[in-house]
Amino acid sequence: MRPSRRIYLKTTPFPEALRRWNAYISGLPRIQEEEVEVTESLGRITSRPVVALSSNPFYTSSAMDGYAVRFEDTIGATEVNPKRLRLGKEAVEVNTGDPLPEGYNAVVMVEDVTREDPFILIYSPVGPYQNVRAVGEDIVESELILPESHRIRPVDIGAMIGGGVRRVWVRRRPVVGLIPTGGEVVEPSEGPQMGKIVDFNSYMLGAMMTEWGCVYKRRRPVEDLPHLLEEAILDILPTVDVVAVIAGSSAGKRDVTPEVVERLGEVILHGIGMRPGKPVLLARVKDKPLIGVPGYPVSAFIVAEYLLKPLIFHLLGLDIEEPEVLHAKMSRPVSSPLGQMEFLRVKVGLVKDTFVATPVGRGAGALMTVQRADGIVEIPEASEGIGQGVTVPVRLLRSKREIEDTVVCIGSHDNCLDLLANFLRKRYPRYSLSSAHVGSMGGLIAIKRGETHIAGTHLLDEETGEYNVPFIKRLLADLPLKVFNLHYRLQGFMVKRGNPKGIKGVEDLKRNDIIFINRQRGSGTRLLTDKILRDAGISATEVRGYDREEYTHMGVASQVASGTADVGIGILTAARALGLDFIPVAKERYDIVVPEYALNQDNVMALLDIIKGDDEFKRAVEELGGYDTSEMGRLVYEQ
Amino acid sequence: MRPSRRIYLKTTPFPEALRRWNAYISGLPRIQEEEVEVTESLGRITSRPVVALSSNPFYTSSAMDGYAVRFEDTIGATEVNPKRLRLGKEAVEVNTGDPLPEGYNAVVMVEDVTREDPFILIYSPVGPYQNVRAVGEDIVESELILPESHRIRPVDIGAMIGGGVRRVWVRRRPVVGLIPTGGEVVEPSEGPQMGKIVDFNSYMLGAMMTEWGCVYKRRRPVEDLPHLLEEAILDILPTVDVVAVIAGSSAGKRDVTPEVVERLGEVILHGIGMRPGKPVLLARVKDKPLIGVPGYPVSAFIVAEYLLKPLIFHLLGLDIEEPEVLHAKMSRPVSSPLGQMEFLRVKVGLVKDTFVATPVGRGAGALMTVQRADGIVEIPEASEGIGQGVTVPVRLLRSKREIEDTVVCIGSHDNCLDLLANFLRKRYPRYSLSSAHVGSMGGLIAIKRGETHIAGTHLLDEETGEYNVPFIKRLLADLPLKVFNLHYRLQGFMVKRGNPKGIKGVEDLKRNDIIFINRQRGSGTRLLTDKILRDAGISATEVRGYDREEYTHMGVASQVASGTADVGIGILTAARALGLDFIPVAKERYDIVVPEYALNQDNVMALLDIIKGDDEFKRAVEELGGYDTSEMGRLVYEQ
Repeated sequence: MRPSRRIYLKTTPFPEALRRWNAYISGLPRIQEEEVEVTESLGRITSRPVVALSSNPFYTSSAMDGYAVRFEDTIGATEVNPKRLRLGKEAVEVNTGDPLPEGYNAVVMVEDVTREDPFILIYSPVGPYQNVRAVGEDIVESELILPESHRIRPVDIGAMIGGGVRRVWVRRRPVVGLIPTGGEVVEPSEGPQMGKIVDFNSYMLGAMMTEWGCVYKRRRPVEDLPHLLEEAILDILPTVDVVAVIAGSSAGKRDVTPEVVERLGEVILHGIGMRPGKPVLLARVKDKPLIGVPGYPVSAFIVAEYLLKPLIFHLLGLDIEEPEVLHAKMSRPVSSPLGQMEFLRVKVGLVKDTFVATPVGRGAGALMTVQRADGIVEIPEASEGIGQGVTVPVRLLRSKREIEDTVVCIGSHDNCLDLLANFLRKRYPRYSLSSAHVGSMGGLIAIKRGETHIAGTHLLDEETGEYNVPFIKRLLADLPLKVFNLHYRLQGFMVKRGNPKGIKGVEDLKRNDIIFINRQRGSGTRLLTDKILRDAGISATEVRGYDREEYTHMGVASQVASGTADVGIGILTAARALGLDFIPVAKERYDIVVPEYALNQDNVMALLDIIKGDDEFKRAVEELGGYDTSEMGRLVYEQ
Repeated sequence: MRPSRRIYLKTTPFPEALRRWNAYISGLPRIQEEEVEVTESLGRITSRPVVALSSNPFYTSSAMDGYAVRFEDTIGATEVNPKRLRLGKEAVEVNTGDPLPEGYNAVVMVEDVTREDPFILIYSPVGPYQNVRAVGEDIVESELILPESHRIRPVDIGAMIGGGVRRVWVRRRPVVGLIPTGGEVVEPSEGPQMGKIVDFNSYMLGAMMTEWGCVYKRRRPVEDLPHLLEEAILDILPTVDVVAVIAGSSAGKRDVTPEVVERLGEVILHGIGMRPGKPVLLARVKDKPLIGVPGYPVSAFIVAEYLLKPLIFHLLGLDIEEPEVLHAKMSRPVSSPLGQMEFLRVKVGLVKDTFVATPVGRGAGALMTVQRADGIVEIPEASEGIGQGVTVPVRLLRSKREIEDTVVCIGSHDNCLDLLANFLRKRYPRYSLSSAHVGSMGGLIAIKRGETHIAGTHLLDEETGEYNVPFIKRLLADLPLKVFNLHYRLQGFMVKRGNPKGIKGVEDLKRNDIIFINRQRGSGTRLLTDKILRDAGISATEVRGYDREEYTHMGVASQVASGTADVGIGILTAARALGLDFIPVAKERYDIVVPEYALNQDNVMALLDIIKGDDEFKRAVEELGGYDTSEMGRLVYEQ
């Protein structure tokens, strides 16, 4: 019974939307053609068939080093009765590739004659045009070199020049006009400002256009006022083939794209049952396609990939090469709303000969979920989700080879892992490290399930005071594995620089004016936090913010830095990275657990080599601050 | 006992050569770095890790449309006893993405309040920072965005700008100096000239460099004289990172590269047991790598792909992404010399659910064998060849998808097939037609063996006077198939324009001054030739050149056009294409045979659609001349 000012967008189911959009696209003519120099045509798309204008070779030539002769003169030659031909008259010395001299019609190989100046002796006859390279042996004049709609490769350039073709008709590069909108959107050069959003969408989309063979024309951000957007569209329209208006396509009060486009042209679709990407707008304005691309970066990426790309490829007369797909087992259950096609970003790892897919956050605003993803799992609108362990097709964003070469690290977050990732790449360019931060306990469970190659862990056993090993014995009793020390590190309270609220220790967490930010359950830091509270006799309900969880040290540091929390527990490196003050609480051991099933993999061994004996890596860790690397690489435990 | 002037090159076995070359490469430093604008960095390789300089979002913002409040003011709110907050004082209207106003610490969603100006009513409490988007939710300051040695993608550009990064350190593009050599080599702009070879190698190599992320610097062709080459190398060396000297690397008298390089630097390897590519020269001059690339275009391609590419990728700090490999059955036996690694070019087709590989010519001079190839089969030096039916790995030059979509056509050559290939591509960009010309009989045998989707055939049965069907009944008795007419066409004598030797008919083939050029056994035209000769009572031994075989009409026409033959039998189109005179001999039926196993494939159906009912295609065939298309697409026979 409560009124709402929100206007919900009515959506078209994704498959139907795709059908209608493709129907519109397929009615559009191909982009015009232009003639370019063959030497400048790499990657362009032919708009006409290319035929050879001359043969290659263009002239008759010797196929061997030897002597040009008339075959008639060699008839009857034998080992016993060689034919004797006078040089310069009946025989002419030729090298491979030399034109066959006028009046001669065969070549004898140099190995098959004896030279007795001014004669050569020939021991067996040759046939007409024997050892002669005929005209057109490689390419014959008028032969088809390339069909229409072919993307020109280096070897095609060679073949065209060889076939006497110097200029080639290709499809013009489609020009895409990009109009970022929103009063809060600013140029990257203006830097981050309070209340402003730097426009990175249009540069990401522009780069996608470049990869697809387009040229893009980007306008400065336009404020979300109808007359300004209308002006911007009408201004750019005559100079482009496609318009993409970024953000403002939804149904909120600041979403002006729909009304402007309705006035200027015809809306084909507004709102599609897809996630992310729902508020997309597909339209035509003055016979040119216009796409209203949602402003959330992940939505923008998905809409470009699934809706803009087919349009561009149609204009170029190209079929879209299907992306590589592999089948992977979902490492955890995923629920998905009925009636929406979901494009779930996942990381994929090859563990125990099985590809395992793990979702990486689902917020449409988190571009890093795409940047870090290995692929996309499409969950159809009729599905409510995917069960754990179910095998699903993954549309890859990286190559299968790269995924196979990646070391999967699931477990506790530590800033050294970024450093380790970089050293692995630097030392062994084919390998990479992919980290998922689910806490120390989560890492051990991932090993148990066979989902990770290594796990970082720092779990303090209260009873024994020992790190990690008691938990491993409990959780992974039957699993052969090795544990290597990475380092010891300082944990402590992170507070704003200058410690404005005067926090001195754990007792302050009870204060009314202090908001705490916690780590997630199952993380080693959470265990440490709970131990500290218990030791001080403080209950969780006494701490404001105890229930707010972050998944990484940097997440906690970031909340403190931005003032949404006054204090959190984390490592010195994270505090330093964001310029926070730090009150030490504990020194803890951080180990890397490697199950036997991963120990002999080349990529894991490469990683362990760096941990065990790379002095440069050790120094780099020490420079981060708060780390004791004296036992780095030591085998701590084995079972 | 006969002397030879040929100097044979001593070669190093390919695996050892590769080891030595890689040992040299891996000692070279990476290319220097340079800083570029992130917006210009697409495809570049990072030379340092990239970390976020600011968080994204950079400020605390509302995650919902609603009202910013202080969570303390909402404590105790219930459906029955809502809290009443004054707008502008205790509550501020916010949109998604708006900065959270100073002094507020939570957001209530618009759906969860009732507005009664100047108040809002709240029915349940919110927690601290509920519905608030935290700083760094996407990217946290100091977080690793990209490791070193990473090729920058569009999404990386978005993430970097989002993370406040505006300039990025990348590896400089390696500069490769290309020096084409040879007195006979001319610029493409000089056009084909007698005795001259147009330089297409350096443009093909240059385009390969471009694809690999290099810049290339090409010199005009240098004459093969030691002092000129030395001058050219010393001139280009200071401005490049790698030198490639094209041609002249062998051991012949005009091969000056080895002596010049020995004088200027150090030869690492000269001559490798590979085919093609044997005379390659690998060297270092003033601490820069120099490759002597053999001048035959296929050799140049293979040497670039297998030896130059690893060097470039090392300089860039990149691992070479393994090319796609598929396993295919060899359609015919291939012998290969012991002691040489052979890189065999093959066409691959997916027929009856099996990939079938067929070699496409082995001449190092025939660039079209690479241009037309789908992949390369590597035959190791210890192997003497590959038996028919053996399954081998094929390193793909086109994608697997493209190969799967290709219609395989093996059989008789006809100029309409080029046209058909182009129409198929034009109408259905994802499909292509790949033709191998082995003659009519070869086509029927290929169907029998399950190696082709369709076969073009024009076999005249002398007894019945009927075309094709008698042969099909004989050869393919048990195989369900359909036969469609493509056209009727004119065959005749092709002679030089103006008919300089006054050829009037078959009787002239007996003349001493007439050289004939024949078609290969098993071709329909060869059958026709033999019938014509038999009808005239002429025996093969009476015809000079009867044993010289060409595989296509264009091949025969080309021999006549260039004067290496006086007459051949072929179709009017081929004569016209090369400006020859034509004396008609027969009108014959040319059919397309489609076995049932291929009939229901989408790509084959698409092709048949064009034959059956595409008026534009029909007109285009008629315009070629010499074709009767009145029955095009008619079902001629079925079994």
